[in-house]
Amino acid sequence: MMSERFAELSPSEFFYRNKELAGYTNPSRSLYSSFRELLENSLDACELHRITPDIYVRLSLEEKKSDTTGIYRLRVQDNGSGVPGKEVLKAFGRVFYSSKYVFRQSRGTFGLGGTMALLYGQITTNIPIRVVTSIGKERIFSYRFLIDIEKNLPNVVERHSHPNKNRWRGTIVEVALLGNYPRISHMMIAYLKQTAAVAPYAEFKFADPSGRLFFFRRTTREVPKPPRVAKPHPHGVDVEALKKLIRDADPGMTMLQFLCDRFHRVGVRTARKFLRFANVEFDTPVGELEMKQIMQLSERMQNFSSFLPPNPDILSPIGRKIFEEGIIKEYEPDFLRVVIRPSSSYLGHSFVIESALGYGGKIPGDAGDIRLYRYANKIPLLFDEGSDVSLKIVNGINWGYYKRPMDGPVAFFVHLCSTRIPFRSLGKEFIADVPEVEREIKASVRELLRSLSTFTRRIEKRKGLTRRLELYRRYLPKIAEFSTKLAGREEEPDIGPLLRKVKKRHAK
Amino acid sequence: MMSERFAELSPSEFFYRNKELAGYTNPSRSLYSSFRELLENSLDACELHRITPDIYVRLSLEEKKSDTTGIYRLRVQDNGSGVPGKEVLKAFGRVFYSSKYVFRQSRGTFGLGGTMALLYGQITTNIPIRVVTSIGKERIFSYRFLIDIEKNLPNVVERHSHPNKNRWRGTIVEVALLGNYPRISHMMIAYLKQTAAVAPYAEFKFADPSGRLFFFRRTTREVPKPPRVAKPHPHGVDVEALKKLIRDADPGMTMLQFLCDRFHRVGVRTARKFLRFANVEFDTPVGELEMKQIMQLSERMQNFSSFLPPNPDILSPIGRKIFEEGIIKEYEPDFLRVVIRPSSSYLGHSFVIESALGYGGKIPGDAGDIRLYRYANKIPLLFDEGSDVSLKIVNGINWGYYKRPMDGPVAFFVHLCSTRIPFRSLGKEFIADVPEVEREIKASVRELLRSLSTFTRRIEKRKGLTRRLELYRRYLPKIAEFSTKLAGREEEPDIGPLLRKVKKRHAK
Repeated sequence: MMSERFAELSPSEFFYRNKELAGYTNPSRSLYSSFRELLENSLDACELHRITPDIYVRLSLEEKKSDTTGIYRLRVQDNGSGVPGKEVLKAFGRVFYSSKYVFRQSRGTFGLGGTMALLYGQITTNIPIRVVTSIGKERIFSYRFLIDIEKNLPNVVERHSHPNKNRWRGTIVEVALLGNYPRISHMMIAYLKQTAAVAPYAEFKFADPSGRLFFFRRTTREVPKPPRVAKPHPHGVDVEALKKLIRDADPGMTMLQFLCDRFHRVGVRTARKFLRFANVEFDTPVGELEMKQIMQLSERMQNFSSFLPPNPDILSPIGRKIFEEGIIKEYEPDFLRVVIRPSSSYLGHSFVIESALGYGGKIPGDAGDIRLYRYANKIPLLFDEGSDVSLKIVNGINWGYYKRPMDGPVAFFVHLCSTRIPFRSLGKEFIADVPEVEREIKASVRELLRSLSTFTRRIEKRKGLTRRLELYRRYLPKIAEFSTKLAGREEEPDIGPLLRKVKKRHAK
Repeated sequence: MMSERFAELSPSEFFYRNKELAGYTNPSRSLYSSFRELLENSLDACELHRITPDIYVRLSLEEKKSDTTGIYRLRVQDNGSGVPGKEVLKAFGRVFYSSKYVFRQSRGTFGLGGTMALLYGQITTNIPIRVVTSIGKERIFSYRFLIDIEKNLPNVVERHSHPNKNRWRGTIVEVALLGNYPRISHMMIAYLKQTAAVAPYAEFKFADPSGRLFFFRRTTREVPKPPRVAKPHPHGVDVEALKKLIRDADPGMTMLQFLCDRFHRVGVRTARKFLRFANVEFDTPVGELEMKQIMQLSERMQNFSSFLPPNPDILSPIGRKIFEEGIIKEYEPDFLRVVIRPSSSYLGHSFVIESALGYGGKIPGDAGDIRLYRYANKIPLLFDEGSDVSLKIVNGINWGYYKRPMDGPVAFFVHLCSTRIPFRSLGKEFIADVPEVEREIKASVRELLRSLSTFTRRIEKRKGLTRRLELYRRYLPKIAEFSTKLAGREEEPDIGPLLRKVKKRHAK
């Protein structure tokens, strides 16, 4: 019998071997993934600090490899917060090292994307990555490095720093990678357009390999207030998380202090109420809890219904005004309605559904088409629509109950904003059907549909009126002429006042 | 400006935080995932060594938590190869430590599943995992341990070993976890049934919490020949993999030796031809290659079209006989056709599509229903059908071209067998649409449909014949009677020979 060979992989090596999981399947899709991951990092670096984003992306073809594939150089420059000098190499050159590992809404989730893009570039070209960054202080740091996949460590080729006279702040990342731009360009443009539609405060310039410049101009300087890092909500804390919180606390701290100090939405009153419910003394030192007590505490935490729901204030939704502005800027619809649902929560994570419905204008598609634009923390989701919870809901609409104009396309925009998006894959392309989220999306879609029905009835009514007036306008003169003759008069009566009267009555 | 907090996660911690990615979303789905991951490990431990699997699964309810959820104890016992004593803790207690990290077909892929099941159990119950195993030699090893998530290391609670008098061989894993059996039981049974349908040589016993025993009896002792570990195929080697192969080789080895020795399907003739193509001397020592040369070599490898395709011999397909036997055993169809496509490859990975079409019998569903059973390396895929390549193909069938009987359901079985399944998520539930794979599935579905059409025409013809014979049978005696009277005869002629003649002519 052959014996099995066991082996250990470094995190870099695991993801290098399974890069498909993170969206790196073929040259076109990998180019798209690299592009969006770097872009999302840049937007996070701005929005988390309420900076109006100015993002410049340049893609150039370095070397043709086949009719459509080639080595491309992708450069993304932002005016975000910058990365502190000592963190640069680790943040970009290691898998599982990131600033995203906190309870906070951000476009990035797994802290993997940037590093995966660099890893993919390295695998396909072996050209070192270049990162230039400054937090706007004295110096600008500049690095060129590869990733040592087996060790999960950066391998520096060149590093230097120079004085930052103009106090420039931001990050430039440049990576060379095998790509197929002709096949994926439409998705990259779509990604920018849909991002611009929810971030009209951002400016994107994209210079593509053929020299075209796509420019998404900002129409407002108003940036939504940034999300805040939150403490964990008791309903989101399992026994492992609780054990870690206890380990990190001063062992002498009382349970009452511990609860008030380390948890989101737990004040003294709630803490007291909970401790009585959990049958734990207020002044028990955390260090003295036995494992059995911790287990029980954790269980009670899940079952205690009087914790306040997580505070939606820590979230950074798009907001009605900016959402409307963005959609109008990009799609100029004839009808637009935005619905913001009250915030809700699942498993201790706060979330809000913001949705919109647009009809006509520059919304792409034929008359009668239904489109769905999905967003998660302001990221447009363009792939794997088939498995997404929103599509399930939109496909499930019973159009027998609602009216819609049939002479133009209708588009739904659904944005899920949360401290934790329940993505179903590392590629961040579709959302799991968490019951709470599903319920809220359903409710908002229904509200949108009711508005659309009202709008449709109004235009149908107006059309009916126009038709009728047209009729009157055509025949009244003839009737007038005929009656004038019949009455043996010379002058026809003025039908103007009559027409105006009819119009007025019908407009009611 | 607030500065960002950077943090590093251990692999365990990353997956603990993102357990949804691996299929651990809620108590029912997590129970299903734990169940299948442990079962797949057990089947691998048997099939990779050509052992006839005897697998015994027991699920018991330890403590009710709500109407449907509770703490369950899941125990999976197999007669597989066992795990060597010194590997047990690492194999089960560490993320990214596995025997699956080789080029070989197996049910397991990511080497994550077992550890994730234990991790999930620990998070929800904090009860240590129990593993008992022996490779059939002198001793049986027994461990109880938890996983230190932050350190990605096992935390042993109890360990001992005792003499193995009866030379027992196999593994028992027992884990306590929060689950919801009532909601997911039908999927667990479906998983067993569909697994049994492609593995009629395996025996499964499943004792469920209500005391029911599901028994899937084996109908054959013939186990498919096990897959073999292969060297990497040149088309599957990117520059990083090539660098590693070079690092691992003796620096004095010549390029000719290196190619013949370290790659799949490269003999001296092919190696020479390739080296001439790549413009590298045969006797260049590998240690003397410069980075630029390695890059060029790697590129040339991708573009060299004369490498032999990967050898399908390293795969372990189900095979026509076992596939038919399995489907007949579980579904007893009225019509069954199995199609085995010739092996093919994508990116240096060998693969084979085995497919089947069954109609009627015990195939579940109503008349006219079309079902799809998807398999990857003998694993049934039960979730996320919507994003799978096979469904796309089955949904795209133009039934105008094909005939099918409308009085029973039709089921497609599609099995993709490969050294590397292009799964799109860690949950192993759906397959990406790799063009080569798609092409082969399409071809086999078409072949199945042609068989079905022929079968349908045959039964329709037979039905027509029966109808016609019925007609003759009813009217010929009357005609005979009438003509007898008309002719003034007494005795009617025998219509038997005439009927037989008609039947014979129509049967042609």
